[in-house]
This record gives sequence, C-alpha cells and structure tokens, in this order.
Amino acid sequence: MKIRIKNAEILTMDAQDTVFQNGEIHIDGQAITYVGQTPPPFDAQRTIDARGGVCMPPFCNTHTHLPMSLFRGFADDLPLKRWLEDVIWPAEDQLDRAGAYAGTMLALCELVRGGVGAFADAYYLYDWTVQAIEKSGLRAHFGRSVVDFTPEMGEAKYQEMLRMQREYAGGRVSVGCCIHAPYTCTDGMMRRIAETAAETGSILQIHVAETKEEFDTCKQKTGKTPVAHLRELGVFAPHTVAAHCVHVTPEDMDILAERGVFVSHCPQSNLKLASGVAPVAEMLKRGIAVTLGTDSAASNNNLSVWEEMTQCALLQKGVFYDATAVDAKTALRMATVEGMRALGLGGAGLVCGAPADLILIDTSSLRYAPKFQNSMADLVYAGCDRDVTLTMVGGDILFENGEVTFCDEREVCRRAQEFVDRALV
Amino acid sequence: MKIRIKNAEILTMDAQDTVFQNGEIHIDGQAITYVGQTPPPFDAQRTIDARGGVCMPPFCNTHTHLPMSLFRGFADDLPLKRWLEDVIWPAEDQLDRAGAYAGTMLALCELVRGGVGAFADAYYLYDWTVQAIEKSGLRAHFGRSVVDFTPEMGEAKYQEMLRMQREYAGGRVSVGCCIHAPYTCTDGMMRRIAETAAETGSILQIHVAETKEEFDTCKQKTGKTPVAHLRELGVFAPHTVAAHCVHVTPEDMDILAERGVFVSHCPQSNLKLASGVAPVAEMLKRGIAVTLGTDSAASNNNLSVWEEMTQCALLQKGVFYDATAVDAKTALRMATVEGMRALGLGGAGLVCGAPADLILIDTSSLRYAPKFQNSMADLVYAGCDRDVTLTMVGGDILFENGEVTFCDEREVCRRAQEFVDRALV
Repeated sequence: MKIRIKNAEILTMDAQDTVFQNGEIHIDGQAITYVGQTPPPFDAQRTIDARGGVCMPPFCNTHTHLPMSLFRGFADDLPLKRWLEDVIWPAEDQLDRAGAYAGTMLALCELVRGGVGAFADAYYLYDWTVQAIEKSGLRAHFGRSVVDFTPEMGEAKYQEMLRMQREYAGGRVSVGCCIHAPYTCTDGMMRRIAETAAETGSILQIHVAETKEEFDTCKQKTGKTPVAHLRELGVFAPHTVAAHCVHVTPEDMDILAERGVFVSHCPQSNLKLASGVAPVAEMLKRGIAVTLGTDSAASNNNLSVWEEMTQCALLQKGVFYDATAVDAKTALRMATVEGMRALGLGGAGLVCGAPADLILIDTSSLRYAPKFQNSMADLVYAGCDRDVTLTMVGGDILFENGEVTFCDEREVCRRAQEFVDRALV
Repeated sequence: MKIRIKNAEILTMDAQDTVFQNGEIHIDGQAITYVGQTPPPFDAQRTIDARGGVCMPPFCNTHTHLPMSLFRGFADDLPLKRWLEDVIWPAEDQLDRAGAYAGTMLALCELVRGGVGAFADAYYLYDWTVQAIEKSGLRAHFGRSVVDFTPEMGEAKYQEMLRMQREYAGGRVSVGCCIHAPYTCTDGMMRRIAETAAETGSILQIHVAETKEEFDTCKQKTGKTPVAHLRELGVFAPHTVAAHCVHVTPEDMDILAERGVFVSHCPQSNLKLASGVAPVAEMLKRGIAVTLGTDSAASNNNLSVWEEMTQCALLQKGVFYDATAVDAKTALRMATVEGMRALGLGGAGLVCGAPADLILIDTSSLRYAPKFQNSMADLVYAGCDRDVTLTMVGGDILFENGEVTFCDEREVCRRAQEFVDRALV
C-alpha cells in the first residue's frame, strides 16, 4: 500500500538527528521512499494528516519476557528472592499453552499501543507464542533461555534452543541463543552457547550483573566480576545483548565497550526489584551502546519503553548528580534506533530506503504546551506512551486511533483473566 | 446536585484503608452522604456507572509553581545554577499579567486532567492568578514566597505576603506564609515569617535542603544543617510544609518528626535538576508525614502527582536496596490523603460526611489486566494519570470524559503560546 503522512514534525533519528518541521513521508509497500519537506508527486492510496503531531521511529524493547504479563500485579513490594521463589516460579509451573498464548497476546497489544515496533524476548514456551508474535506483525527476536541446574536439564534446554533456531529460521521472528545468567548456568554451558552463537552468527542474550548479590557471589566463586568472568569464558562475541549490567566496575565497562556488547538497561525493573541503578551515563561516555528494556510486566509493571526512556534520563541525572547526563536526544536514540541496532535491525532511522517502521504521536494536548523548537524534551520529560496514535511496522499499521489491528483486545484480556482465575488464584 | 456513583471499586483511603468491590457512593451537594455496598434509597439527579473502574480520593500536589508551566521545555538538561540564572530568572522577568494567567490556567487544566483535586503553590504574581484558581474550583493553598537579598526587598515582599493573607482571607483559596529558602532569606526574616505564621495560625511553606550545595553552604555558615538551623530559628511551627528535604541527616529527620513537619517530596524534579534522592523510606519509619509534589513543569516537566507516586515507590526501593520500601498502599496514601492533611484539608478519605472530592479511573484497559484482589499495585506500577476519567471537588465535576469543564483548553494553550512567542523566543 502507498501511504503519505503529511504535516508531521519528523524526528528522523538518522545519523545527523535531522528534524523536519511540517515534513512529509512516503511509504510504498514495506519501505520508506521519501522523507523531507519538498515531496515529489506521489499517488498515495491513503493520506494521513499528522498535523500537531510527531512522526519518529518506533520504540524498541531490548529485554522482556512477554508471557509474564499474566503475573502483572500478582505480587509486588517483595524482595527478589521471595518474589522469584515463592511467587513467580510456582506461577510459571502453572503456565499452559492457552495461558502463555494469552499472556503473549496481552503483551503484544500493550507494546504496539505504546509505540513499540520491535522487541527481544528471553524466555521459554516459544512453540506456544511464536504464532502470536507472527500474527502481531511486530519485529521480534527471541532465544530460548538456558539454565542448567543439572547436566540433564542443561542438555535438554540447550538442544531445545538449537531446535528452535532450526525450526523458526527464516520466519518473521529471528531466533538466537540465550544464556539465562552466569548464576544459573555452568561455565561449560556458557562457553558452549557462546560458541554456538559465534558459529551460527546469532545474537546472544544474557542477564548480567543484575544484583549486588550476583556480583558478590561471582567474585567469591571465581575471583572475578561477572563481566570479567564472562569475558574470560568468551561469552561476549560477536553480537551480545546483555540485560541489566547494574553492578559493573570501570574495568567491566571497558570490557563491554571493547567487546561491542549492547547493554539492555531496564531501569524500572531494577528499581522495583531493589537491584540498584546502572551507571549508564558512564557507559555512554565509554562508548558502550546502551539500549532500553522493560523486563517483564511482573516486575515493572508495564511494557512501556517510553517510561524507561524518561526514567533513564531522570535517574542518571539525579543519582549521579549531573543534570546534563543523558539529554533528551540521547534518551530518544537509546529508546529507538540504538535498540534496533542491538537486535540487528539496522537502526538508520526514518530515511529513504529504510523499512517503513514508524509511530505517530499526538503532541497537540496541553501536556506539550507551550512549544519551543522541537518536541524532544517534551517527549522525554512531559509526555507518555498514551500519546501514541499510530504504530506502523514494515508498512503495516498495527495500532491506530485507539485500536490494535491484529486482535480483539477484550477477548485477549478475557483469556488472560481466564488463565489467572483457573491457575493462580 | 445529587449524584450516585455505582459499580466502582472504591479505595476509600480511610483510616482502615477500606476497599469496597462493586461499591456505591452518594453525593449530596458538596458532601459524601454514603459509601459502601448496601446503599439506601437515593433520589439522585445523575447516576454514573463506574463499572470497570476505580473511585478514590483525588491526588494532592503539595508543592508546585503553576505559572511556570509557561517554561515547560524551554530549557532542559542543564545544571541547576545555569538553569536558574541563565534561563528561568530572565524568563520570569518577562512574566506579565496575561502570561501568568495563561500559565496558571494551563497548569490547572493539567492538574484536573491528572486527577488532582488540591494543591499548594509557592510563587508570586498571585493577584493575577487567584482569579484563575477560583474559576477552576480546585482546592488551593498559596503563600507569597519571600526572599530578601536586601532589607528593602525583604520588607516589600513580607508586606505583600501580609496583604495577600488579609485580602484573600475567606476565599476559595487559603493563604499562608512562605519563606523561599534558608539560602535566600536572612535569619531575621525567617524568624519574623515563622512568628507571623504562628500568630495567624497559617500554613508555612518553605524549600529545605534541596541540594547538596545548600546543605554544605549552610553547615559552613552556621555550623548546622539546614534543618537544624531552621529548628533553632523556630521556623518549624506549628504547621509547616517543607519541600524537598533531600539532604537530611538522621538527626534532621528526628527534628522533622518531632516538629510534625509535613515533607513535600518532589522526586522527579529532584532527579531532573540532579539534586539527589530524599530518604523517604527512612522518613516514614521515623513517623514523618511525607506527601508528594511535582514542583513546576519547568523542572519536571509535567504536573502529574500520579507519576511522582510511581517514582517515589520505585526510587525508594531501588536506590536504598529494599523492595519492600514504600509499598503501593503507602504510595497511594502519600499521593492523596496525606497531602490533604498537609494542606489542612482533612484527608479522611472517602467517608460519609467528608467533602465530595473524588476521582474515577478507568481500569478496564489491558494495562490493568489481568486482575488480582484490588487495583492498588496496578495503579502505582502499571497505570498512568491518563486513565483518570473524572475529577470531582466539593461535588463539582471539573474534568470528565476528556474535557475540562471550567475553560476552553485550546484557548488556554493558544494564550500560553502567545506569551511565549511574544516574550521568550
């Protein structure tokens, strides 16, 4: 379909952060064919007037666990260990096909409502959820998360990871490798998965240095920080997305920078679970590519990358006493194009020839008044993801005017509730 | 008018935190005449079906500066000193009657949209803005902020403060005393204002220990912390609302508790201006009444008490490494009834005989799915103030179904922009 979007403030997020006031975008099929202020003739089948609004790349959620949306609000204000062992793990034991599908659909609806166009998921149950993801039209990456508390368990999960890589290759979702975490995987298994990732050219997801306890235990056991230990095992190669990285030393940050690791910073989850605040401003200074993730709705309790963006910019300023840390433009790039780069999805921004992934945001409300220059600061500090009016991925509109286009949201909520009523309470 | 609200999940926020599932509220004129699940007959003129929604007390913003909404997005990501001296103060020099009125109206609209029913303002220009506040129907408290860089300046502002107390006494807004801050007021003036507050039985507003620099300078000059210094001057009596209190020692917290000072915690502004994180969990343990403020939209950049509530709960957990700190119920109380108490407005919650101040929140969307027990955790961790569908103060509906009832919002935005285009850019 040929779509024209006109009269938008376009934040291209290209390499020069070009902004067009009152700009126009042409979409032909799956790609953007024009971005600018002097559009050529274009026989669009549909014209969208975005007057009073912003057009920009969609948000990218580089760390989440979709089916866990079922546990949103199930247990809060608990310490991590009690939360995991007493509540989340037993609840996960109850997960069945219908529940996982419903939870994934619930999460997908929330993502597109919040202007998210792509995400990385690290969980299990993918045979039950890939169908939901493909139906949604979002860009997705997943890796079956491997833990090996026993050799048999490790082998089984590793083989499952390999099978999924084979089985889902070439589909809409890309499939990679995933080590759950250094504290749930043996060194041997971590080495093996890293080698598999390198051989297959896959993205490797891993949770790293989420808590102080993890950091301390690793130092005690190995004499090294989690990051240094993982480097020694060869885990950071060639394309790693490391979630959290809250407890990292300056030397750890040098390793992450040197190995080109993409960090998935999850500020809200790190706060809620009392894990701490990652030194993101310092990471950025060292050239580390930092992206944003929500973690699951069980520990967040929503999937708004917009909120993570705002939180990241505020936290870095306030906790590290520097009002210039993570300015609005930096926060917007982390939340969008940097995330796309981390998932191997380009991240060139809204430029001619790029995939037609974009969102529209209504900035006509009083929350964005008055107006100065461009809307970047308003987006990061004043607005929220409820202002997203349209989410487009690959030329397809997944959300528009308050409605998700790929499913019946009421039915999705009903099915999620059905699982909860049947299995949890 | 007689209004019935039915089928609501009622979070009364009364002394027992009573929750009614599928409850009903009767409003007769300005007061609540029934709350519960077994309603008596009531010949309501209007019935509101709140099915799938929450009814609770409105939010209370205990520290803000309304006209500064004009400067939202004017300057961000700057250190406090540059922000104040290079941007905000020169901009304030340009403020005129039309601008101040427009900025105040803009802020009032944002407040009621976000479910705020009462606020405390510490600024100047009140002769120009009281009219706007009265028109809005919100409950408000203000105190003309006194600074005395010279004796003449101090005297003039002090006299203005007194004049306003006389002039606006008995109106819809309550008027008190206000010391800008220990670093902008002489000891003599602070003593004098505190005495005036005690004599007139007024609320005294003051900024306290917002930055590390303020704390250090005060210790250097007086040998005491700002809080200890203010106690010695007799400032904390009898009803003080102290904004910020970021940099306080354990001894300072004991003073605040002992003097019954209400703290107005402004987490987002403290983060954005790189001031730090107040030890709120510790304050609560010591029995201090902590309430929430947004500060102005120039340093926030919105007036959402809901966001402050979420931020407070998350920050205290993450920064002080305790996942049980400031649980959902505590955060909700701080954001609502505790704030009302700080402003001398009761704060009994939704109980029979209380003023008909309440809000309705739509919790039928997927952001609140699935549902467990009550909605408190969802409200604090998953929702946002865009979910407010109705704000009622004293039986009057100030916001409903996306529309502010006391003014034309487009016109308000137009006038705010007019000031900006004329005076600032």
